[in-house]
Amino acid sequence: MATEKLVGNMLIAQSGGPTVVINQSLVGAVLEAKKHKEIKKIYGSLHGLKGILEENLCDLGKETKQNLELVAQTPSSALGSVRKKPTPEDCVKVFAVLQKYNIRYFFYIGGNDSAETTHIINEAAQQAGYQMKCFHICKTIDNDLRENDHTPGFGSAGKFVAQAFMGDNLDNRALPGVKINVIMGRGAGFLTAASALARVFPGDGPHLIYIPERPFSLPQFVADVQRVMAGQKRCVVAVSEGIVDETGEPIASKFISEVDSHGNKQLSGSGALGDALAKEIKEKAQISRVRSDTFGYLQRSFTGVVSAVDAKEARLAGASAVKFACGGQFNNGSTAIKRAPGKIYKTWIERTELRNVAKETRHMPDEFINAAGNDVTPAFIKYAAPIVGPLPKIGRLKAAPVSKK
Amino acid sequence: MATEKLVGNMLIAQSGGPTVVINQSLVGAVLEAKKHKEIKKIYGSLHGLKGILEENLCDLGKETKQNLELVAQTPSSALGSVRKKPTPEDCVKVFAVLQKYNIRYFFYIGGNDSAETTHIINEAAQQAGYQMKCFHICKTIDNDLRENDHTPGFGSAGKFVAQAFMGDNLDNRALPGVKINVIMGRGAGFLTAASALARVFPGDGPHLIYIPERPFSLPQFVADVQRVMAGQKRCVVAVSEGIVDETGEPIASKFISEVDSHGNKQLSGSGALGDALAKEIKEKAQISRVRSDTFGYLQRSFTGVVSAVDAKEARLAGASAVKFACGGQFNNGSTAIKRAPGKIYKTWIERTELRNVAKETRHMPDEFINAAGNDVTPAFIKYAAPIVGPLPKIGRLKAAPVSKK
Repeated sequence: MATEKLVGNMLIAQSGGPTVVINQSLVGAVLEAKKHKEIKKIYGSLHGLKGILEENLCDLGKETKQNLELVAQTPSSALGSVRKKPTPEDCVKVFAVLQKYNIRYFFYIGGNDSAETTHIINEAAQQAGYQMKCFHICKTIDNDLRENDHTPGFGSAGKFVAQAFMGDNLDNRALPGVKINVIMGRGAGFLTAASALARVFPGDGPHLIYIPERPFSLPQFVADVQRVMAGQKRCVVAVSEGIVDETGEPIASKFISEVDSHGNKQLSGSGALGDALAKEIKEKAQISRVRSDTFGYLQRSFTGVVSAVDAKEARLAGASAVKFACGGQFNNGSTAIKRAPGKIYKTWIERTELRNVAKETRHMPDEFINAAGNDVTPAFIKYAAPIVGPLPKIGRLKAAPVSKK
Repeated sequence: MATEKLVGNMLIAQSGGPTVVINQSLVGAVLEAKKHKEIKKIYGSLHGLKGILEENLCDLGKETKQNLELVAQTPSSALGSVRKKPTPEDCVKVFAVLQKYNIRYFFYIGGNDSAETTHIINEAAQQAGYQMKCFHICKTIDNDLRENDHTPGFGSAGKFVAQAFMGDNLDNRALPGVKINVIMGRGAGFLTAASALARVFPGDGPHLIYIPERPFSLPQFVADVQRVMAGQKRCVVAVSEGIVDETGEPIASKFISEVDSHGNKQLSGSGALGDALAKEIKEKAQISRVRSDTFGYLQRSFTGVVSAVDAKEARLAGASAVKFACGGQFNNGSTAIKRAPGKIYKTWIERTELRNVAKETRHMPDEFINAAGNDVTPAFIKYAAPIVGPLPKIGRLKAAPVSKK
């Protein structure tokens, strides 16, 4: 029995923090959609839900393949993004606009908040008896979406972090001292942990890695740094912006007051946490050369540092969402990256329920974190290395010592 | 009449802030030295003058060519660096060690402080009637050495800054607001100015560029940002860490107290300036989404982002210093990059007097700065683009608007 195809227009939008490969997903979806006759117009909404609410749409069917390919390799959301979390009233309005433009295929690229939004819009459509395929396309540098082995955007951000630490470790080796680098990641430590991929030679930093999955204690931090300094005479530290104390209170919140539109403490776009940690080391450990850098937005937008695997998977996630929507088997869902167990890196995209991805986030599993809670395990390296891909080769002088005269 | 060759050992060291190509100069010098029979042992000093004072030397003659080539493409001083400014007593000690190891060829890779050190050591040798060739090899990401059209290290740091701004401009376009990025450069604005190379499409940031060569006024800054926001609805700002007020007082010194070993206020390794400028905009211009990032040490050490021209010139500077030393024409000097006038990019290395490079630094010429003192001119772009080299290609959606229904 042939399934009757749902005929109508498509709308796609991007939401949340941009990534270096989020446009691969956009272009993957658009190019796939062009293959399906049941999809008529292909609209893009500018700045996510905001563009839908304001009927600020563009016609992606008019883009040339050549330009789409150039956009695909360009960082940051080409359609614009939004941090807005929709109210129930917003969802009613969004749904009204989607109906007005005869949208029958709706795709929303984003993290867990965006999956939640897609879920709400899907429910509204179902309740109204309006036939519309509703799919969320996974992305986040934080790598914290449930159901996913990893998420598009993480590999490239991880590559940036690893290459940054490779260089920073060499800088710290040339001019020894304590160097603290603050990495993005509100609740999950994956991106901070990716700093460990920078280690090439014995003694290479990062020497300490602090993630939100383990409570952060200032006295323990000072003791850890003193121990590394005693052995290595230098210390490179990776700290997640989202580290919390024993009570779950973010350490950064002691120094930062601003709150974002989701009601979360704004952790990025400030050097306050790094500066405070550096001050603590200077004062308590009495070490003179202590510096901190906060990698900030470069991690999600730097041009020219892309994981090839990440780019490919992001493209596939976008294309797969359209295939799922057009396949007739599912009316809604989210794309999830699955990975074969074993040594050979093999991934594919599965469709999962929206509610499985929405709201709650995923954390670093225990097997990726060392017992002391200040480093990663070899299991994490095995997990992350193929996602991030090959890093630049670096060398070190043999530096054969000369006998003193 | 054949010149009698000075026969003896060579010592090379690296000093000051590392760069991504400083090892190209080291390897260029070592490989060139291996061609000259009058140079016997090739010693490297670990951590600059400190290694000489402590007789902490290594035998670079024992390095394989293959390993040297790997080191050449590795960021940050492979021999280690030092921030130490030698006292007159240090210079006496350094000279004594050089004599003890029969060093007849001395090379010091660094900025203007290192040129000054080389000059002092050279004078000490001359006064003692000790024959020794003394050469400084130019490097600094700040691009502030006199006699040089530009310096090794600047091109790659400029490439990092440009690629960072390309991405950050796209991030700011996706999620509009004010974004302030603080760039390295104590007295010279070249590296901050390199952010202008990130502009690809009309309206691209950075929209404002502030450099130490022009006095920085907080009220004018707020007015500039408000004007850009009124037009573009967003604003990306490049600010040098070394910006000063009308009296020449660094703006950062109002927020940072630490002083480095040269007696200079420590401007890097803190997010304080960026945070303070962001706070000023939030309060005075009443703009809600204001973020700041301080690019920090990544600018001089990030692995994998290298200007090919910069790498080639750094290699040539190292090799040229050895050629000058062995040529018989000069007993001392510094390498300076010279450039042919006109459209075709052509450079070569000349020998210049040590005192011409030592102590004082070079600043952005007036022709590179716009009248308002908040941007660069097309002349700067013409100057900097070939040094930084090609940047990644990025695209933008045509985004043909859809009529509202």
